[in-house]
Amino acid sequence: MASEIFPENKDASTELLFGASSELVECISQALDHGDFAQIGQWIEGLHSADMADLIVRLAPEAREKFVDIFKSYITAETLAELDDSIRKDILEILGTKEIAAAVSELESDDALDLISDLEEDQQQEVLRAIPADERAILEEVLTYPEDSVGRLMQREIVCVPPFWTVGETVSFVRDTHGLPENFYTIYVVDSRHHPLGEIYLSALLRHHENTPVSEIMGKIQKVISVDQDEGEVVDLFQHYNLVSAPVVDASGHIVGMVMIDDVFDVAEEETEKSFLNLAKVHESDFRAPISTTAYWRIRWLAITLVNTLIASFVISCFQISIQKISALSFLMTINAAMGGNAGMQVVTIVIRALGTHSLREREMWKAVRKEVSVGLLTGGFFSLLLGGIAALWVHDMHLGIILSLALLANILWAAFAGTILPIVIQRMGLDPAVSAGPILTTTTDVLGYALFLGLATLFLL
Amino acid sequence: MASEIFPENKDASTELLFGASSELVECISQALDHGDFAQIGQWIEGLHSADMADLIVRLAPEAREKFVDIFKSYITAETLAELDDSIRKDILEILGTKEIAAAVSELESDDALDLISDLEEDQQQEVLRAIPADERAILEEVLTYPEDSVGRLMQREIVCVPPFWTVGETVSFVRDTHGLPENFYTIYVVDSRHHPLGEIYLSALLRHHENTPVSEIMGKIQKVISVDQDEGEVVDLFQHYNLVSAPVVDASGHIVGMVMIDDVFDVAEEETEKSFLNLAKVHESDFRAPISTTAYWRIRWLAITLVNTLIASFVISCFQISIQKISALSFLMTINAAMGGNAGMQVVTIVIRALGTHSLREREMWKAVRKEVSVGLLTGGFFSLLLGGIAALWVHDMHLGIILSLALLANILWAAFAGTILPIVIQRMGLDPAVSAGPILTTTTDVLGYALFLGLATLFLL
Repeated sequence: MASEIFPENKDASTELLFGASSELVECISQALDHGDFAQIGQWIEGLHSADMADLIVRLAPEAREKFVDIFKSYITAETLAELDDSIRKDILEILGTKEIAAAVSELESDDALDLISDLEEDQQQEVLRAIPADERAILEEVLTYPEDSVGRLMQREIVCVPPFWTVGETVSFVRDTHGLPENFYTIYVVDSRHHPLGEIYLSALLRHHENTPVSEIMGKIQKVISVDQDEGEVVDLFQHYNLVSAPVVDASGHIVGMVMIDDVFDVAEEETEKSFLNLAKVHESDFRAPISTTAYWRIRWLAITLVNTLIASFVISCFQISIQKISALSFLMTINAAMGGNAGMQVVTIVIRALGTHSLREREMWKAVRKEVSVGLLTGGFFSLLLGGIAALWVHDMHLGIILSLALLANILWAAFAGTILPIVIQRMGLDPAVSAGPILTTTTDVLGYALFLGLATLFLL
Repeated sequence: MASEIFPENKDASTELLFGASSELVECISQALDHGDFAQIGQWIEGLHSADMADLIVRLAPEAREKFVDIFKSYITAETLAELDDSIRKDILEILGTKEIAAAVSELESDDALDLISDLEEDQQQEVLRAIPADERAILEEVLTYPEDSVGRLMQREIVCVPPFWTVGETVSFVRDTHGLPENFYTIYVVDSRHHPLGEIYLSALLRHHENTPVSEIMGKIQKVISVDQDEGEVVDLFQHYNLVSAPVVDASGHIVGMVMIDDVFDVAEEETEKSFLNLAKVHESDFRAPISTTAYWRIRWLAITLVNTLIASFVISCFQISIQKISALSFLMTINAAMGGNAGMQVVTIVIRALGTHSLREREMWKAVRKEVSVGLLTGGFFSLLLGGIAALWVHDMHLGIILSLALLANILWAAFAGTILPIVIQRMGLDPAVSAGPILTTTTDVLGYALFLGLATLFLL
């Protein structure tokens, strides 16, 4: 029967480039309803942990709960590590402390920590008590580092050797020592106080004769990262110098771990994701959250638009009499606000991005302002001539066209100026320009857009 | 004199986390003006190639040209590889064919290719003729792969061994073979037809006894990538499976290269950069481009706003008589358009992002629509009650408040529905939803926002 719902079940997990196929999700949902658990077991046997995580995420909430409860044993520590935070919380509630502790022991310290930080304070303590003392000590230490710091991101399992060792001694050490990381790419050469002196790529180790001292073949360490550095800065650092790994030191310069490019890759994706969604005022977990939570987040963001639009409405209401007298004002006024707002968003976005990638430093603000205002003169000039002309022809009123032209040019110039200054000032205040610069600027271009156009019209045409 | 302008010149390149400091850029500009070239030479001696690239980018155009011309010899192949495309073009024009050819020979195939593709067709041929025949053959082959395909991204220098070799034989091979990549992390085990069978991490190689056959210690290859696959898909693949490297095969399954995570990292950054900037309608190279080019790009994007706003104005102009009769319409109408537009942008952004990360597949469209419309009902309900109430109190007109409520609810529901469908349909048409979904949706929410509110008011209140 099951094979009728899902004829090519054997290929189910291999037919796609990656992830759980929609067919697999569909079939598992149906089999769950029919209680056909043996069939599900066959389907998910051998599924990659990342695909299993994908499958869990894609199941409907009730099906997901049932699935996790019945197929607990298939959910590996890696699967838990792969899950989206918002969904993992629910899964961890279904699993018991024992299962979570087992998963935590199995994972490397950075993933284990990520998992633990999802738990409630009391369950966190319970899980910590249930894992072996040495692992607990490490995790508790790591938990003392601030969130989003390198201390949380780094891998503590590293291979260090003294500079007077030979290639042969190093190879024997790697061969005979238990508890080294499963895969590693770099060995660090450290002095007697555990300060990093140099790094050796494994390929260099393979290439040299066993009597060669490691101090002869070690390469210069491009950058040493401090344990309390911000994750985001490390992303920029890795990108700038094309690093694959970097050693991490504590305040006294002792090596305490290393950061690998794959962890940095994850941080980079999270960061761009966040700034991308912030720009459009959407919460990071919006897509996977339940309807009511999503609605709550959306409402919170849209409240900014509400304030913005009420201010703009108030400005327009001040010119009611003018609009009654010259009815064309009512439909021409929106042009100025829309063009100013969009021109401003272009400027704000490029400045936020340039600040984020360090292409623009705060002290170069005036250079950026000069460029943006020049660009504003050109674009503003172009559109003010074009739209002024269109307006004049449309309403057969040369004066109204000229007024729209002037107001538009002024608004676009303001957008260029304020759009550059605002993100820089907001950043200097220690806030995130991606969140607030856009709405603030749009409010000003709206207000200015309506006030200038309607004001000039009132002044000269009434 | 030079040390007066730049007192702590020795620390100039080390004081920052990375990149060329603004002081260094400033001092070099001044020294260029004063002709103090010996001083500049001292400052830039030993600068990392990435920092040198940063310095070149940050110099003003005239200073840059002069600097490159005089300090040609300091500009390494790696510096050229690091440069932003738009600026590299200019630098390559200053350098001669001979210098470019030397740089191309020095770089690994992916970077060399990147450099060559910046040249004009005839200079490309010239450079190709000036490099050694064997390197030329490789580059010419790579140039046959489509842009943004894995064939262009991959590293062709890989280490392959047959399955019957031992660890010892493999180590000797690595030690004694010239021309292997300088750093590598994985060795591929291939059969006699060069089909990949498994992979060996160097750390595994170090750990095992030299008599162990490699077939015993090789690990399963998670994913084999095809040479004509799109770069973007590879990013998703690496992220999904947390890969560090993957072998690349041609149409007949022969291994032809490998993709490393650091290259994937670069592609990922480029892609998110692009979609981030597309969302706000800014060109990728906007920040570094000259004023006139930037203005041209901005105008091209703002032309969309122009069309959008003219359509909206036309809709409003159809209701001139109603606005003349009920003057409150003129300032309340913008509320509906603004709220609908912003609610729609939230939906569009989240759907574009979910499509991009494959969290949402096209066939799950109706599931997404159901959620978004439900969210729209909640947010729309909330704001329509709130704003309807505010409007009624503001203009002392209960009926106008009710009409605003209804129009607002309908517009937000439309934004939820169309905001979900539109990006999916655009993607299915083979276009990029990040570019066009936003403006199209905003036009509809503007039109609907004005038409619904003004239309209902005309119908019921006049």
